[in-house]
Amino acid sequence: MSDRLETSVGWLSRDELEVVRGQVPLVYVDAVPVRVDARGIVTEVGLLLRAMPDGTISRALVSGRVLYGERVRDALLRHLEKDLGPVALPRIPPNPAPFTVVEYFPEPEVTGYVDPRHHAISLAFVVPVDGDCQPSQNALDLAWLTPEEAVRESVRREMTGGQDRVLRLAIAHVGLLP
Amino acid sequence: MSDRLETSVGWLSRDELEVVRGQVPLVYVDAVPVRVDARGIVTEVGLLLRAMPDGTISRALVSGRVLYGERVRDALLRHLEKDLGPVALPRIPPNPAPFTVVEYFPEPEVTGYVDPRHHAISLAFVVPVDGDCQPSQNALDLAWLTPEEAVRESVRREMTGGQDRVLRLAIAHVGLLP
Amino acid sequence: MSDRLETSVGWLSRDELEVVRGQVPLVYVDAVPVRVDARGIVTEVGLLLRAMPDGTISRALVSGRVLYGERVRDALLRHLEKDLGPVALPRIPPNPAPFTVVEYFPEPEVTGYVDPRHHAISLAFVVPVDGDCQPSQNALDLAWLTPEEAVRESVRREMTGGQDRVLRLAIAHVGLLP
Amino acid sequence: MSDRLETSVGWLSRDELEVVRGQVPLVYVDAVPVRVDARGIVTEVGLLLRAMPDGTISRALVSGRVLYGERVRDALLRHLEKDLGPVALPRIPPNPAPFTVVEYFPEPEVTGYVDPRHHAISLAFVVPVDGDCQPSQNALDLAWLTPEEAVRESVRREMTGGQDRVLRLAIAHVGLLP
Repeated sequence: MSDRLETSVGWLSRDELEVVRGQVPLVYVDAVPVRVDARGIVTEVGLLLRAMPDGTISRALVSGRVLYGERVRDALLRHLEKDLGPVALPRIPPNPAPFTVVEYFPEPEVTGYVDPRHHAISLAFVVPVDGDCQPSQNALDLAWLTPEEAVRESVRREMTGGQDRVLRLAIAHVGLLP
Repeated sequence: MSDRLETSVGWLSRDELEVVRGQVPLVYVDAVPVRVDARGIVTEVGLLLRAMPDGTISRALVSGRVLYGERVRDALLRHLEKDLGPVALPRIPPNPAPFTVVEYFPEPEVTGYVDPRHHAISLAFVVPVDGDCQPSQNALDLAWLTPEEAVRESVRREMTGGQDRVLRLAIAHVGLLP
Repeated sequence: MSDRLETSVGWLSRDELEVVRGQVPLVYVDAVPVRVDARGIVTEVGLLLRAMPDGTISRALVSGRVLYGERVRDALLRHLEKDLGPVALPRIPPNPAPFTVVEYFPEPEVTGYVDPRHHAISLAFVVPVDGDCQPSQNALDLAWLTPEEAVRESVRREMTGGQDRVLRLAIAHVGLLP
Repeated sequence: MSDRLETSVGWLSRDELEVVRGQVPLVYVDAVPVRVDARGIVTEVGLLLRAMPDGTISRALVSGRVLYGERVRDALLRHLEKDLGPVALPRIPPNPAPFTVVEYFPEPEVTGYVDPRHHAISLAFVVPVDGDCQPSQNALDLAWLTPEEAVRESVRREMTGGQDRVLRLAIAHVGLLP
């Protein structure tokens, strides 16, 4: 979610971004990195530990903005590599449709998904990763949890902005217990 | 696609919109209105005739911007009512995920989907409509075609910006011949 | 789930069905009837009260077999009308793909979805219904619950065979709290 | 589609299968093997050359029956390995839902999908494969075509039973030109 370190094409100064984020919804991608077995069953879910827009240190999904001129796939790949390192080998799904659309608003009452900075519309994807993952840049840690562990109340409480719900929708999408 | 007649919350002056559309991708919705039979099979597809951003008079999908503070569902409903009239009775799908994501760029070579005005990321939905439809506001006409007619070469040539492809992806999504 | 009152084409005697159900997986449909508002948001979920294959009286989804020679859409419509009455006006989705596939086995350890009678592969759909619903034939009652109520522990305990999980996957599919 | 070489659990003699296939719809899986680039974009589609149930030598998808007691994922993996060899390394999707459901009937007028032997309901998946593929067992050849090549009229004419339509629905599902 750092909007400062971006490629040149879509780069905005902090001031420009401050203006634009009050004018139109921003496009985001949310990715739930997973480990899968040979049959495609999700065995583990990856959660970052990071400083969040609301000021907390929380468990979080891979998430970030799609830049002007950037394809959604490229944004997904860029944010996954930024958060999981250059050798995570994410498997971006061939189908361009997200499994759900998450609408973050500054006001918690609209959808329950909250981003205090702006209105963001996020395309959410489950992304299998095969390679070595190491938390990089803004992430303090990366933990792999089983789907059962990931839906526990204790994990929910460590997530903010409604990302625990996105995580559970992702787990339901792959047919497991939400 | 008129950005002038919008609700107060997300309203931007023409100048403001000119600036912002060069800074971030805009969020759009594309809707393919359909008639379905009792078994859910698509029997007809609705196509507008309208003035397009590229200056042509073309067959077109229902399409428009999601405003700041507006939910995707509300944008979908607003644009359907604007283009098909107030008694079209669109059936917005319960699932928030679009059937595909269409990325419009000013440059035709990126994805083949083109909007000369800006980079837009459009969530595309198939929307059954039950009521009386009458083209309103910017639309000059509304034609109902069978899926077979809608994929004909003659119809393709009357559509611009790649919307003929969106239409065929929609027809494939409902299991019919693309 | 009554296999006796079926159309002629796919009708099997009880003995024939006993043999075949030990030889191949049977095709089922599971339907989650829902009430939606004008924006497509699910406001209520319909649950039957019925005698289940495991001998219990349980809360249940609309569920039943696809017959030889029958299209999936027709099976869905037939079971919805059988369980909710002839004026329920179900809206069968245009997209032929189910939101999930549920694999019921006699052994509880395979997938957690259990049917003591056979191996069934069920295509699960969320189906908005507009009309008057009245439990008919095998159903003793029909209750409409909000999505929040439907995922409560007390409701879960009243469902068997893993149908509470199918219900929660359906609620997640429409973007609500699972 | 060979029903003789199956694992013990779901094995049926040829006579038993002849009886059962006239009584209930059989569950099949259809897989469209694809090569994808690092961004998940489909670059090639794999088509087998094989003897088909209608007696022709045709271009074909990976396709086969789900056995009694077998999970859909395992059937998908089994048929992919049978047709593409043991080191194809198929990536079975984590989401259990197929991208479409294909209903094959002996009579061509029902859905346009035809299997002269029986009524089959097939769950269709797009499956990226990473490893070396070599046509094995019943397949005479395996060809990799670009999506553009795969939708050409000449390829359509080499496919039977409506599998050319399944192929085009798959290509549409991944956002490419159908």
